[in-house]
Amino acid sequence: MSLSSILWALWYILPAYVANGSPVLVGGGRPIDGGRKWRDGKRLLGDGKTWRGFIGGVAFGTLTGVVQYFLTPGFYGDLKTAVLLAFLLSFGALTGDLIGSFMKRRANLPRGAPAIGLDQLGFLLSALAFAYPVMSLSSGQMLFVLIVTPFIHWGANYFAYRMGWKSVPW
Amino acid sequence: MSLSSILWALWYILPAYVANGSPVLVGGGRPIDGGRKWRDGKRLLGDGKTWRGFIGGVAFGTLTGVVQYFLTPGFYGDLKTAVLLAFLLSFGALTGDLIGSFMKRRANLPRGAPAIGLDQLGFLLSALAFAYPVMSLSSGQMLFVLIVTPFIHWGANYFAYRMGWKSVPW
Repeated sequence: MSLSSILWALWYILPAYVANGSPVLVGGGRPIDGGRKWRDGKRLLGDGKTWRGFIGGVAFGTLTGVVQYFLTPGFYGDLKTAVLLAFLLSFGALTGDLIGSFMKRRANLPRGAPAIGLDQLGFLLSALAFAYPVMSLSSGQMLFVLIVTPFIHWGANYFAYRMGWKSVPW
Repeated sequence: MSLSSILWALWYILPAYVANGSPVLVGGGRPIDGGRKWRDGKRLLGDGKTWRGFIGGVAFGTLTGVVQYFLTPGFYGDLKTAVLLAFLLSFGALTGDLIGSFMKRRANLPRGAPAIGLDQLGFLLSALAFAYPVMSLSSGQMLFVLIVTPFIHWGANYFAYRMGWKSVPW
């Protein structure tokens, strides 16, 4: 795999990263589950998943796609594809994040507790699956993105923690 | 994606599943880390990772590839490719499993404690990456296998637990 195909893979996935990261900055507000509990007596998703974080994340991620289109129009072909791809990557990433929170609550992990693997890969697999029908990476690029994302995720979270944006370094 | 391409994807990955599952049956014996500790004072890998489990898993996984070749020679082209692919999938799966155990010990999770995501996807990503240079899935097949594996993994572990082969249902 060439360096250029690796860089394009990261460029492709960028809206998912932005969507996944932005709730740290724009989050807060009313929880999506409205305080409701699952039949195990535990919260459906928890206070960490809010409408503002979800909608803000999808908005920032989709906006990223617009900027990307104007920087590299040839990669997307047309603006409609770029926006749709960025929306699906963002919506997919945050839906995967919600599924992850649901699973963590069921496994009795408190809000903010880490789940190694799920935290780094759940949002990404979901983003890749949602975006797949519109535009897809090659299998080699996909493997690269899946293997390198946990390290980018840890680095970004550690940075956010050191900046005081997050209360825990994961 | 067609049903046939989904079935071929599962056929492709089978040696990794066999390698990942067989230490439950053939495991035990001397731990790979020989009781040694990392600089954090905790075990390098723990008593759950043994030479017998690792070598037995690679052997069973590779043998699976031999049987697969005689059942569907056209899928592999020749025996050498089938055996090399099965070996790399098995060796990759169990290497990913060791990396996962190393990370779990560093995160202070005791032996046998679940790490949602890492347990189901770590071995698979590693197997796919090791096997990639010899023979690869399409990106759609790869996504399918990555998304469906956690569910197969949970089902298989629950089965092994009910059969008394494992002491915990994960």
